[in-house]
Formats: sequence, structure tokens, C-alpha cells
Amino acid sequence: MIIQLALDRLSMEEAISITKLVESEIDWIEVGTSLIKEFGMNSVREIKKAFPKKTVVADTKTMDNAAYELEISFGAGADIVTVMGTAPKVTIETCLKIAKSHQKKIIIDLLNTSRDQVQALQVFEDAIFCEHISKDEQEMLGNSTSLANYHLLGKDLLSPRTIAVAGGINIETFPQLCLTNASVAIIGSSITKAKDPKHAAKSFKSFAIQGGVTL
Amino acid sequence: MIIQLALDRLSMEEAISITKLVESEIDWIEVGTSLIKEFGMNSVREIKKAFPKKTVVADTKTMDNAAYELEISFGAGADIVTVMGTAPKVTIETCLKIAKSHQKKIIIDLLNTSRDQVQALQVFEDAIFCEHISKDEQEMLGNSTSLANYHLLGKDLLSPRTIAVAGGINIETFPQLCLTNASVAIIGSSITKAKDPKHAAKSFKSFAIQGGVTL
Repeated sequence: MIIQLALDRLSMEEAISITKLVESEIDWIEVGTSLIKEFGMNSVREIKKAFPKKTVVADTKTMDNAAYELEISFGAGADIVTVMGTAPKVTIETCLKIAKSHQKKIIIDLLNTSRDQVQALQVFEDAIFCEHISKDEQEMLGNSTSLANYHLLGKDLLSPRTIAVAGGINIETFPQLCLTNASVAIIGSSITKAKDPKHAAKSFKSFAIQGGVTL
Repeated sequence: MIIQLALDRLSMEEAISITKLVESEIDWIEVGTSLIKEFGMNSVREIKKAFPKKTVVADTKTMDNAAYELEISFGAGADIVTVMGTAPKVTIETCLKIAKSHQKKIIIDLLNTSRDQVQALQVFEDAIFCEHISKDEQEMLGNSTSLANYHLLGKDLLSPRTIAVAGGINIETFPQLCLTNASVAIIGSSITKAKDPKHAAKSFKSFAIQGGVTL
């Protein structure tokens, strides 16, 4: 299992200092949407500069203007960029084309997609598919996110694809998640807001079975 | 008709200098998604600082983390923030709640929404509804966007709401648009990429019938 550390609602100084604490325990670093919208592409540049050997995910949540958004993200040092599954098909196609031309990857964020939309997205074989329970949905659920909330996990629909899971993953649910067909666990506040981020990250790492995604 | 000038794929210097040229011809200034993702909230702060009397729209295209994204946008000087119609309902509810607490507005961007989704969104009476043909879709259509591509315009579904229209509006289609039930025309490259932006903006202004949206 690949651990993707999601950095959100932090200053750049906090984001870098927390990541330094847990660098050896995590695999990929996600520059969260909140950092991108607050600090622009400088957020991606600073994270890649501080952690040049790590795979950096820019959570742009692209809905349009795919070529431009992906070019500036890869130009700033991103290795993977996210696009919404609810975006027009042409936008996702363009993301995949630009990513391939840079030998980079995309994550299709399945937030609020219908089953029909998920089915139609299966043509994008080279993408990583992220089942996502959003922060706002988690708060509505009272932050009691359990694996039962992930409706696609372990089902046939996504099974031949590389699967990522995001939203409310904590140290209670993570061991179960490691037994599913997910390859990437996106973990945010369970590490970044922990009293002891290093200890928290070590706990996740101890359960993680290394997945097989290659870039 | 309110003219909303959309600033995209520009440096901040270009964005400000073009807007200064056309300031008297346009009503609202949109800090485009590309500016926000490239330069962060500084883009909104700089535009509001340069044009303090104008209504500033931050095109955040919010999909999640609504409270945070709207607070930083309003804090940076935005008067209106955008949220995607394909976002979870709780996200749109939160956007509206935060906007009301600041006596500000939201635009719900209907990009790639189904008829059922548009129907369900009608509960958000205080929002502005934006029918949107995205840049990527326009390029797929060969940049030949005609008013016939706007399926919701003039139909009963949106008619009691405040309606904005975005995507490929040019000086050929604008006069027709002024005869529809739209209140806000979002115009980007037809002004920003014109050889003479001031002349282009004047041409749009000469056709515009002032709409009745109040903030």
C-alpha cells in the first residue's frame, strides 16, 4: 500500500516541517487543493524543491482548461495531477494526453460520480481511480467514516484499475483497507493534525503492504 | 445585461493592465481558475486592490472544503465565489451559508450537470446559475460556439433564477444573448485576446441591456 500524505489547510512552512518529520514513513506527497488555491503553483514548486525524490501529487481537481492546468502543474514539479470524474470527457482525455507526453500520471477523482459515470470512465485504463469521500461529506457523516462508505472498493467495477482511496482514513480503518484492492491510501489530518505526526505515520506504515504502482 | 470580464491564462500584470483598459465598459471582474491555481489568493487580492469598486468573482470551482475555500476567497476580497453544480449537495449548502454570513453571493457552475442535477439545484434560490460551455468543450466543438449549444437558456427550468452564461461568447452571439433571460454574460478571450480590448469591450457594452441583479 502506497501512503499518500495529503497536505491541506496549512501554511507552506507547516506543510514542509510536518512532511520532514514523516518523510521516511510516507511514499507520495499531495499538495492539497487548499494549498494550490491559497498559494498557487508556488506550493507545488516548494514541496518538490524540499522533497525532490518524492512523487508529488498536485490536487488541482481539474474541471476544465486541462492542457494549461496540467502544464503549469508538471512545470512546477508535479508527478501526478488530479482531474474530476465529473468533468467533461474531453477534459479527462486531454489530461491523459498531456500526462503521457510528460511520462506522468493522472488521478481521476470519483467524488460524487454516478455508477454510470464511473463505468464510462473505465476507458481511461492508464489513470489511477480515486474513490473519495470529501471533507464536507465526512463532516455531514459526523466524521465517522467507515470502509462501508466506500461503495466501489472491492467491487468488480474498478477492480482491474489502480485504485486510490481518500477521505477520513484513520488508524482504525487503515488495517482493513490494506486488505482490499486499493493500492494508494490518501491520508491527511490523521497524520498532519496528530499530536505526534511521526508516531502516527509510523503506525500507518507498520500496517502498509507496499503496493505495486510504478510511475 | 451584466458583463463579467473573465481573466484567464494571463500574468497578473497583464490581467490588471487589460482590465484598466476596459474598466468603464465592464461590470464584474472574474479572477479565473487559472489565475487562482497559478498565483493563489494573491490573484484575488491584487485584482480587488486595483479595482476596489468593482464586484470581484473568484472562480474557485469549489468541489469540497467549502467553508475554507470561501473564507479565504472572501478574505482576499471576492464578492462572489463559484461552486460546481456537480459537487455534493452539502458543499453547495455550505457555500451558500458562508456567503450569506458575509452578505456575499455564489455562482453555481452547471458545467457537465445532468438535467436531474440542475433540477435538484433549484432549491438554492439565492444562487446565480451559470450555464457553462467549458474551454475544453469549445475546442472540441471547433470554437464554433453558438447560442444553440446553451440548452438551458430560455427554458423553464432555470427561468425564475438569476442566470449567467459562460463559454465562447463573442460579438456575433452577444446581441442575441441580450434578448434571452440571462442576466450575466461572462466574456473572456473575446475581450482579453482582442487586438483592441477597449474597442471590443465597447462593442459588447453597446449591446448590453443592464440587468437587474443586485448584490
